[in-house]
Amino acid sequence: MTVSESTLRNFTENVFLAMGCSKEHATLAADVLLLSDLRGIDSHGVARLTGYVRLWQKQRINATPNIQIVHETPSTATIDGDAGLGLVVAPFAMKVAIEKAKQYGSGWISIRNSNHFGIAGYHALMAVQQDMIGFAMTNASPLVAPTFSNERMLGTNPMCYAFPAGKYPPVIVDMATSAAANGKLEIAQRAGKPVPEGWIQDSAGNYTTDPHALKSGGSLLPLGSDRDHGSHKGFGLSATVDILSAVLSGANYGPWVPPFVSFLEPPVNPVGAGIGHFLGAMRVDGFRPVDEFKAHMDNWVTRFKNASAIHPDQRVIIPGEPEFEAEQYRRQNGIPIVDAVVKDLNEIAEKLHIKPL
Amino acid sequence: MTVSESTLRNFTENVFLAMGCSKEHATLAADVLLLSDLRGIDSHGVARLTGYVRLWQKQRINATPNIQIVHETPSTATIDGDAGLGLVVAPFAMKVAIEKAKQYGSGWISIRNSNHFGIAGYHALMAVQQDMIGFAMTNASPLVAPTFSNERMLGTNPMCYAFPAGKYPPVIVDMATSAAANGKLEIAQRAGKPVPEGWIQDSAGNYTTDPHALKSGGSLLPLGSDRDHGSHKGFGLSATVDILSAVLSGANYGPWVPPFVSFLEPPVNPVGAGIGHFLGAMRVDGFRPVDEFKAHMDNWVTRFKNASAIHPDQRVIIPGEPEFEAEQYRRQNGIPIVDAVVKDLNEIAEKLHIKPL
Repeated sequence: MTVSESTLRNFTENVFLAMGCSKEHATLAADVLLLSDLRGIDSHGVARLTGYVRLWQKQRINATPNIQIVHETPSTATIDGDAGLGLVVAPFAMKVAIEKAKQYGSGWISIRNSNHFGIAGYHALMAVQQDMIGFAMTNASPLVAPTFSNERMLGTNPMCYAFPAGKYPPVIVDMATSAAANGKLEIAQRAGKPVPEGWIQDSAGNYTTDPHALKSGGSLLPLGSDRDHGSHKGFGLSATVDILSAVLSGANYGPWVPPFVSFLEPPVNPVGAGIGHFLGAMRVDGFRPVDEFKAHMDNWVTRFKNASAIHPDQRVIIPGEPEFEAEQYRRQNGIPIVDAVVKDLNEIAEKLHIKPL
Repeated sequence: MTVSESTLRNFTENVFLAMGCSKEHATLAADVLLLSDLRGIDSHGVARLTGYVRLWQKQRINATPNIQIVHETPSTATIDGDAGLGLVVAPFAMKVAIEKAKQYGSGWISIRNSNHFGIAGYHALMAVQQDMIGFAMTNASPLVAPTFSNERMLGTNPMCYAFPAGKYPPVIVDMATSAAANGKLEIAQRAGKPVPEGWIQDSAGNYTTDPHALKSGGSLLPLGSDRDHGSHKGFGLSATVDILSAVLSGANYGPWVPPFVSFLEPPVNPVGAGIGHFLGAMRVDGFRPVDEFKAHMDNWVTRFKNASAIHPDQRVIIPGEPEFEAEQYRRQNGIPIVDAVVKDLNEIAEKLHIKPL
């Protein structure tokens, strides 16, 4: 089923309104999810809507949060999300970062007591629209084992760095710090297909290609897959995200991060509040004039696009380019949604007494 | 040959003095190199001294630089290193970052017109000593090909994140963004041993285990090794380092970064000045009280050390722990130096008319 942007946006907004979100929050939360679907990151868009609704039903998401700055200096702050949707907490925090950057050159926000914030790229792009460099990270429910361990200790903990360019779209590095994102695993699970060696291990710590191994105590592997290929680096990056997002803000970290799914209970002995994010904005003209920077970004992109290709039909992909192209296409032609997700969304609609998709 | 810390420190300082560095710069540059040798990162310590000397002989390193802030806001700055040793330019910049953090919560410095800055960890640790979180990155001579390319477009571009802890040593993630650091390759070259698949490719873009493949047009692979295992993420991280260090500061980026070796000439059409670094410092108490943060860091470290191990004799390694242990040991027992490096150092000594090692 292919749905137009506006139809999907209205539907999503109605779901958040039915949850009791304010009009402003519902519009914003829908905007974050829609951008994910528009950019082709289907795993993080409306496919997750049912997850947010279920956590709200379990009273683990607060639809009317009082989001507050609890500590600050001119260029830093800690924000408490009051158990709100990460989809509204993170944009609130990014606005604070941007205001600080306007005044002092940069703004850095660590956030506690939040929930899943959608795609990191949404928040980083808020900075890019102001001619700033955007940073966005979040920790997440434990699925990834550190090098040498078979225990799920870390989430897929994404990092995002976003840079404005001139004639080109922004360069956006938005990546899970695991070898493969959980979304890719879900695709293999649905298709019943094996995954490449190096993505996951079974409960004993042996490589497996079974995409269902996580259900029987397996774990995702850090970027690098094994020690010889740098999995300790993927672990280190994931640890960095965890510390900046949660140890710094007062959120839960490591294996204490509460699960995103409603059928698993949060740990009984939390070390902090909710999950954590870390966001930042730096003014480009805090370093050099914006037009100079953009001209060199364009030169950078052009040069990398023209790097010698191993196969002539497979050129170097600039980070963020495929998502930008998907966005252009889907804004025109609508967003394809798989049947299982349509069914999920219409079940939500029935439960919340709103118009189905 | 095993040399005491003080002997090696005096020798190194004398080399920099003979190059015409001020006493202050010679002491500082020696300190940066020594910390690398103390921490067991032999590839980045005095083994590189001959490289610095040769570049200075070619007048590509300025022994008496006028390092200057050329642009700034309260929390950001751009610094021109005046072609000085990165070993003195980066600590100068980190001091500026720390001062800004003291006043405004954080400080972020992009640096142009510099040279190789030693281990990133040295600079990040300067922040940690002030109860701050330290960030350090640098671009470097092109050796790494982006995903789908067989052209050397990026350096091994390391990123470092360093966090103070309480009873534990600081947690320091200090990593090349390539699958393997160049230093590891050099070890295999000296030993004449094959390297694992996934570290390097030959000039046609095929995997090879020949550690000498770089000499015949081969390239290092980004962290992740191939697309299926996330090499586009390693490429994205390396791109991030390149942009923050050089596009932002006005240094050379991508394939324009000048080579560290004196026998290769810099590109004739530079897009900036020298190589670039990016450094940052954030006050921990810009987010939460230092003692709270350190208590949770200790809890984080303890929990990760106790993560279930696949093999009982191979526990999870906390980032920075092996280097900390090497430092404790080598400060007591001296620093082992391989014969080839001793020979190199004594040749320098003869040339510069200083006492040999």
